[in-house]
Amino acid sequence: MRLDTMKPVLHPVHLVGAGPGDPELLTLKAVRVLRAATVILVDDLVGRQVLGSVLEGAEPAPRVIHVGKRGGCASTPQDFIEKLMVREALAGEKVVRLKGGDPLIFGRAGEEIAALRAAGLEVEIVNGITAGLGAAASLGVGWTDRRMESQATLLLTGHARPGSAGPDWRGIAALAATGVTLVIYMGVSRLEQIAAQLLAALPADLPAAVVERASTRDERRLVTTLGGLVDAVAAHGLGSPAVLIIGRVLRDARVDAFGSVERVGT
Amino acid sequence: MRLDTMKPVLHPVHLVGAGPGDPELLTLKAVRVLRAATVILVDDLVGRQVLGSVLEGAEPAPRVIHVGKRGGCASTPQDFIEKLMVREALAGEKVVRLKGGDPLIFGRAGEEIAALRAAGLEVEIVNGITAGLGAAASLGVGWTDRRMESQATLLLTGHARPGSAGPDWRGIAALAATGVTLVIYMGVSRLEQIAAQLLAALPADLPAAVVERASTRDERRLVTTLGGLVDAVAAHGLGSPAVLIIGRVLRDARVDAFGSVERVGT
Repeated sequence: MRLDTMKPVLHPVHLVGAGPGDPELLTLKAVRVLRAATVILVDDLVGRQVLGSVLEGAEPAPRVIHVGKRGGCASTPQDFIEKLMVREALAGEKVVRLKGGDPLIFGRAGEEIAALRAAGLEVEIVNGITAGLGAAASLGVGWTDRRMESQATLLLTGHARPGSAGPDWRGIAALAATGVTLVIYMGVSRLEQIAAQLLAALPADLPAAVVERASTRDERRLVTTLGGLVDAVAAHGLGSPAVLIIGRVLRDARVDAFGSVERVGT
Repeated sequence: MRLDTMKPVLHPVHLVGAGPGDPELLTLKAVRVLRAATVILVDDLVGRQVLGSVLEGAEPAPRVIHVGKRGGCASTPQDFIEKLMVREALAGEKVVRLKGGDPLIFGRAGEEIAALRAAGLEVEIVNGITAGLGAAASLGVGWTDRRMESQATLLLTGHARPGSAGPDWRGIAALAATGVTLVIYMGVSRLEQIAAQLLAALPADLPAAVVERASTRDERRLVTTLGGLVDAVAAHGLGSPAVLIIGRVLRDARVDAFGSVERVGT
């Protein structure tokens, strides 16, 4: 090999899930990959304490680049993030793209994988605990429950792509009426529209819960009904990031074990 | 306190997700809780190597009780498992119930939580990476993908409770026709019925994939179409445990990077 044409050794780019917020909910693999990284691109939704606890004492410390990506707010354009990842990886850096939850759930992983592959780079995905599961764990309920004939779960986002048709709320409500649990991400800012669409086909006394910042020290939970949801969320000032869960499985939701729990109108 | 009436100190029972099979996909919290346990009740679906790697050198070694719970096979009755957990926890043991994937997805967590609470015990849930996400990571696709107008994901089980109405396949197929990704657990043994139900409403060329033993060394993946699914699974002899994924998101599924990958009829 001639030195003047030597190219950097390329490493696979890792798309890594940071989990819902509790640093202990990182996987062993995520920790290993993060500590071996030289460049880390981090989403806004990843709690600062997650990365801090992982990188403590990492030598040499990786370059950490914050690339905001929060629904509704000004944030780094997706295109810029993809180009940055590609450039760093082609320069021989060990790049990790760290996302809240799991990168494969509402995380734009498909777009980023395509961009990386188009540049000839390999991609590896390291799963994380998705916020909707962290929320259900805090509430002490399953996403499904045989006892309540709740045998399926639908994951949705309240944050539709501009110009897209948006979710088929009639079909979603029909499915929920058969016992399917709804887990809605990024839905709190559009809560009124979502609740109105669902109330057109579902009973107002169907249990509903909101978990803000699931699994973190700042977590707040609210258990109420579909009919009482909008008022209760407003009254308690709950906001993003939060997960909304609607369904029979919440009948047994735990509301007594934590200081920050509220049950409203059920 | 009088010694003759002294009761054991009770510890919360932990329901812990073991992830899809790769021991590195355990969370830090799962490892900590498992290493502190004195009694561990383990499902069949948890790979032996997962527990072995976690408990290596744990002193004193916990008692490990295998309680099979695999769809369709003879297994320990649910009622017996619940009584065993309660008895051990009331005797002062630090009990962990270790389940494949995440305990809140088709894991009967609701039933076990109710039994433990009825006995006056506290319960804590430690999430795990669910097999359906491990499968998608191996395939290199998201559960959703904005580019394909795939904005929601439905998690189902192919293993209906005896006597239950079973899933509303017509509603499910209608939702899938709008781009919703289907992730079906425990579906391979009922593949013919599931495929027939879906083909009544969905195009035969809709991409479909099966991932057997996702994330383990024995993982096998198959990417085909809904129409070709039954024959392809039979031809390659794929079986449980496996996850079935159906939807547009598979259009970019990775089939070239691993020795065990097959793409059939697409």
